[in-house]
Amino acid sequence: MQKASLPKGTRDFSPEVMNRRNQIIDVIKDVYVLYGFDPIETPAMEQLSTLTGKYGAEGDNLLFKILNSGDYLNKADGQALADKNSSQLVPSISDKGLRYDLTVPFARYVVQNQHNITFPFKRYQIQPVWRADRPQKGRYREFWQCDADVIGTKSLVCEADFIQIYHQVFTNLGLKDYQVRLNHRKILEAIAKTIEFKGSFTDLTVAIDKLDKIGWDGVTKELSEKGLAPNKIDHLKALLHIKPFSVETIDELQASLVDCEEKSIGIEELNQVLQYGDISNVNIVLDFSLARGLDYYTGCIFEAIILDSGIGSVSGGGRYDDLTGVFGLKNVSGVGISFGLDRIYDILASQGFYDEKYTHNTLLFCHFDAVARKYALACAHELRAKQIPTVVYPDLKKINKQFDYANKCGYKWVAVVGDNEIETESVQLKNMQTGEQQKLSVTDLISKFS
Amino acid sequence: MQKASLPKGTRDFSPEVMNRRNQIIDVIKDVYVLYGFDPIETPAMEQLSTLTGKYGAEGDNLLFKILNSGDYLNKADGQALADKNSSQLVPSISDKGLRYDLTVPFARYVVQNQHNITFPFKRYQIQPVWRADRPQKGRYREFWQCDADVIGTKSLVCEADFIQIYHQVFTNLGLKDYQVRLNHRKILEAIAKTIEFKGSFTDLTVAIDKLDKIGWDGVTKELSEKGLAPNKIDHLKALLHIKPFSVETIDELQASLVDCEEKSIGIEELNQVLQYGDISNVNIVLDFSLARGLDYYTGCIFEAIILDSGIGSVSGGGRYDDLTGVFGLKNVSGVGISFGLDRIYDILASQGFYDEKYTHNTLLFCHFDAVARKYALACAHELRAKQIPTVVYPDLKKINKQFDYANKCGYKWVAVVGDNEIETESVQLKNMQTGEQQKLSVTDLISKFS
Repeated sequence: MQKASLPKGTRDFSPEVMNRRNQIIDVIKDVYVLYGFDPIETPAMEQLSTLTGKYGAEGDNLLFKILNSGDYLNKADGQALADKNSSQLVPSISDKGLRYDLTVPFARYVVQNQHNITFPFKRYQIQPVWRADRPQKGRYREFWQCDADVIGTKSLVCEADFIQIYHQVFTNLGLKDYQVRLNHRKILEAIAKTIEFKGSFTDLTVAIDKLDKIGWDGVTKELSEKGLAPNKIDHLKALLHIKPFSVETIDELQASLVDCEEKSIGIEELNQVLQYGDISNVNIVLDFSLARGLDYYTGCIFEAIILDSGIGSVSGGGRYDDLTGVFGLKNVSGVGISFGLDRIYDILASQGFYDEKYTHNTLLFCHFDAVARKYALACAHELRAKQIPTVVYPDLKKINKQFDYANKCGYKWVAVVGDNEIETESVQLKNMQTGEQQKLSVTDLISKFS
Repeated sequence: MQKASLPKGTRDFSPEVMNRRNQIIDVIKDVYVLYGFDPIETPAMEQLSTLTGKYGAEGDNLLFKILNSGDYLNKADGQALADKNSSQLVPSISDKGLRYDLTVPFARYVVQNQHNITFPFKRYQIQPVWRADRPQKGRYREFWQCDADVIGTKSLVCEADFIQIYHQVFTNLGLKDYQVRLNHRKILEAIAKTIEFKGSFTDLTVAIDKLDKIGWDGVTKELSEKGLAPNKIDHLKALLHIKPFSVETIDELQASLVDCEEKSIGIEELNQVLQYGDISNVNIVLDFSLARGLDYYTGCIFEAIILDSGIGSVSGGGRYDDLTGVFGLKNVSGVGISFGLDRIYDILASQGFYDEKYTHNTLLFCHFDAVARKYALACAHELRAKQIPTVVYPDLKKINKQFDYANKCGYKWVAVVGDNEIETESVQLKNMQTGEQQKLSVTDLISKFS
């Protein structure tokens, strides 16, 4: 006998959970549609070459690789086999992997379909992604991303739209304590110039990006190792923490950074983004310590968190000037954001959104015998013809067993039928929550539920 | 530079295709809900042990296996490595696979969650599955199944419901030329007794199941090899093709089969199923040559085709008495069906359902300059507050370029704004299909699209 179990870090979703997840997805989807985004989907499997090298060395290790079909050892790298070198063997026995995010598949999609796409192209995409990460709170090996991107325009109107989208999505979800953090990669570049950082820009952003996880002690250690002097680290700290984290911060920034092209562009673009839309209701802050781990960002970057949730960011994104370049389509700028469905679900659950007992709105017919069951089937046929979801309890069991079933499943409405109801072409409609009962003709029953 | 390409047998779905696919999914989902089914989802990855041995030897070969993470060669079977034996090596380097269908994961789900499930349990599940099959017309390596199952009851009311569901789904999809084929595994067992077939029952059903693909010549060859004499094969042929393929066929069947328990049960159950619901409008036939390849079916079996579509069955299903047994939960009977989304899509496309030009119902703002764009953004903000999907063309381009964009994307409605419209707080609303134009105040614009 086999044990029924699931791979580590993966989950089943029950009807109860599915309904809630679908509500979250609908909120996000509806806002995306409101802002003119259209849906696309890409396959779970991509060519491994499409995925590798896009997420850093750590990312490559976290890719799920699919074993080639058939006699895969036939074409295996003999040297790697002899050396028992797992990573060296991979390319010769696996040419497909599961997608790691929705951004790289989207870039691949845009390049592959460039002749059928009218730019600027606004797409949303809500699908699972897979990472062989160590499972922990808020982190799964299969999880859902809800992405929206505009590609083929440099207009900062898009950034302004995303800020509104953040406000709308969190407000519609009932998550009022959200915070949108905004920064600009060019500001970070100007900061690097101001502190005269000699290492690679990636070294700096990768270190800053870890601030939430390893704190200033960790970041200091990492940057010292890259040769940054203690006084420069203090300077960096001061620049990243320019206070208050508010829109007025820009003036202070203006005064604190050395003059350079990056500073001009960064400040100019942030100013534009903040004046394209009405942000008076939006909980937005400028946060110069926001770096985003991924290399491809070149302009505005975003992150959204739910304050005091104990879970990291629930969304991130930014502008990229050349994401499609690696696949051969140069100079196409885009900007996008991604919501983490699973983290949003976990936060809503922890805030008591799902404490109420689950109610099933389908009408359940219970019956006293086979004749009554047949009558119930005929009633159900009529109700369904009027688009009213209906179930007939399938077995011939004592009525109390049937009521137990109704209660356990959370059915609110039960239609009870026996000889008397058959004779009068009616049902006894019972509200399982209050216990109230009323006799209704089938016609009235249909009116009530229509 | 990398080539942007996809693994063989997988596909991207454009907005146009997504909208149509979602329409099909909504039709199926709505009918499932109407009959009281609740949604669940299971992960793409299952333990390989959950999947292997459930779909026959051929099925095992078609499973996509996921390479273990990290230094997977460290625990690899040394002998299999030395022998370069691909299939023998698999269990030591891969412990996960992509799901092959939704039925086995559902059985696993039921056993794993048995203490939280109230039986009978009605679930639907609409997710992709993966098979390393040779891609061809109507066959993909990633494709969508739309399953519904009732588990935990032997009531034939469920089978009757599925027949109604077939009628409703195909009618709602506009596929009037559907045909539901019904048979019973016990009838096939009685046929095996009647022709005194000495081989295993699986040999017989596997052979009959190939009738569509390899014809009677092929089936004759296969059964001869299993030792069935030519006159018995003729007898089998006669029994499987009892005509007409209609409900009255049962009388002829009664007379043609040797008396046995299987015959009594099979005929009794088919009769019951056909009288539980009103099937006067349903295109249903009894077809004793319907076998269904899978071993686990024990009662009624279904298949649905679209006549003259040139594509095989678009749905199949049946009753299974012990699908959960392999995972340790015995004696739980269930019945279910599965629609193939991709085949339904292909048929609808081939029947001209999708020939009309795609129309985008979002309102697009086009503008003459930066000031007008800012005005458009403010209008869009108001429209979105009323839940009206709106896009502002993001770049400052000549108005004709913007109209080109609208036409190429299929936008039906464009709101044009310039100095005059700003002054009068209005827009020029243009119907891109007719060319008609009218000046509307923003308030009237909102009313029109609300």
